[in-house]
Amino acid sequence: MPAVEEAPRAPGRPRSLRVDEAIISATLDLLAEGTSVEVLSIESIASRAGVGKATIYRRWPGKDALLHDALATLKSPGPELAGESVRDDLIALLGQVGPSTQDPRLPQILPCLLPHMSRSKEHYRAYQDIIEPRRNRVREVLRRGVANGELRADLDVELTMTVLIGPILVQRVLRWHPDLDADKMPAQVVDLLMAGMGPAQS
Amino acid sequence: MPAVEEAPRAPGRPRSLRVDEAIISATLDLLAEGTSVEVLSIESIASRAGVGKATIYRRWPGKDALLHDALATLKSPGPELAGESVRDDLIALLGQVGPSTQDPRLPQILPCLLPHMSRSKEHYRAYQDIIEPRRNRVREVLRRGVANGELRADLDVELTMTVLIGPILVQRVLRWHPDLDADKMPAQVVDLLMAGMGPAQS
Repeated sequence: MPAVEEAPRAPGRPRSLRVDEAIISATLDLLAEGTSVEVLSIESIASRAGVGKATIYRRWPGKDALLHDALATLKSPGPELAGESVRDDLIALLGQVGPSTQDPRLPQILPCLLPHMSRSKEHYRAYQDIIEPRRNRVREVLRRGVANGELRADLDVELTMTVLIGPILVQRVLRWHPDLDADKMPAQVVDLLMAGMGPAQS
Repeated sequence: MPAVEEAPRAPGRPRSLRVDEAIISATLDLLAEGTSVEVLSIESIASRAGVGKATIYRRWPGKDALLHDALATLKSPGPELAGESVRDDLIALLGQVGPSTQDPRLPQILPCLLPHMSRSKEHYRAYQDIIEPRRNRVREVLRRGVANGELRADLDVELTMTVLIGPILVQRVLRWHPDLDADKMPAQVVDLLMAGMGPAQS
């Protein structure tokens, strides 16, 4: 049982966002410094955040729930879409692939966490919950293109979405190719997919 | 200075492959269990492998060199290619994308290691050294297709290679999409790229 070092929460008392943020930031800090998810503990997070363990346990039932919320903060809501050309909307959405670039720690954190998340069904679902809203936006644009003829009628939307996002994700997170520029890739990938790699039709 | 607990290596004495393998296996085991690269030490590897630190230092100058060789063992040499159709050769090569599936620990190890490797120029080069030979095989097939007309003449080979490999890598390593089958993706991705996602040409 964690020691209680704060007064019990009174009804209607507003949650301290500042404390929430300090706890989430401490979690991300520890991960970014190389602490593995297995080694990460509520105790080490509390110590880093300068709060007691009870403060964390009042907000989250445990490490996994906290981790889920910490990861969720890494995702921005995504861009506004013009809604005119499928090509332009896809490029806008692909510009947001990968961890939000505002936090330089993310490229170090996410690739380690995702395989961890996929080890259990529950974690995998949590990880899917985080990325699903963004996938949905890409899906909607692709479906719109299929419906209005900008894209081929028999397009496999799930596959195409993965083929659009995957290369940018590996480039942004893993810097997989030494020479490609992840920021230029959204337009490059969309245009390659639009045209295909087959010989030009005459 | 590590203590020496073996007799000095006599000229011509064959290197003990068994010991090499035990050390590399211990390194991969520790990583797969969640030990971060930062925390990983020659001491912990020696302990796990059942050898003295000096045994490791006689074979590798330090942790980074050992890590490089351990990672290199995760890559298989790749498939034989029929050399007839570009499509078939690409599918064969893409079937080997990602860590060799013979070692179930890999999906947990690689995604954590790659960002670590990319933090320093030296590590990034080592990581590129490991994947470059495989990229070269894909490059050669794409260039052959451009040369013989199976692919479009103005194809961006580096981009296309990344668009072919990236989706399969994120699916195999991160299980990014809950419903796609990484084993079926090589043919699916190649055929999507061949046809493009644009409307069918009449």
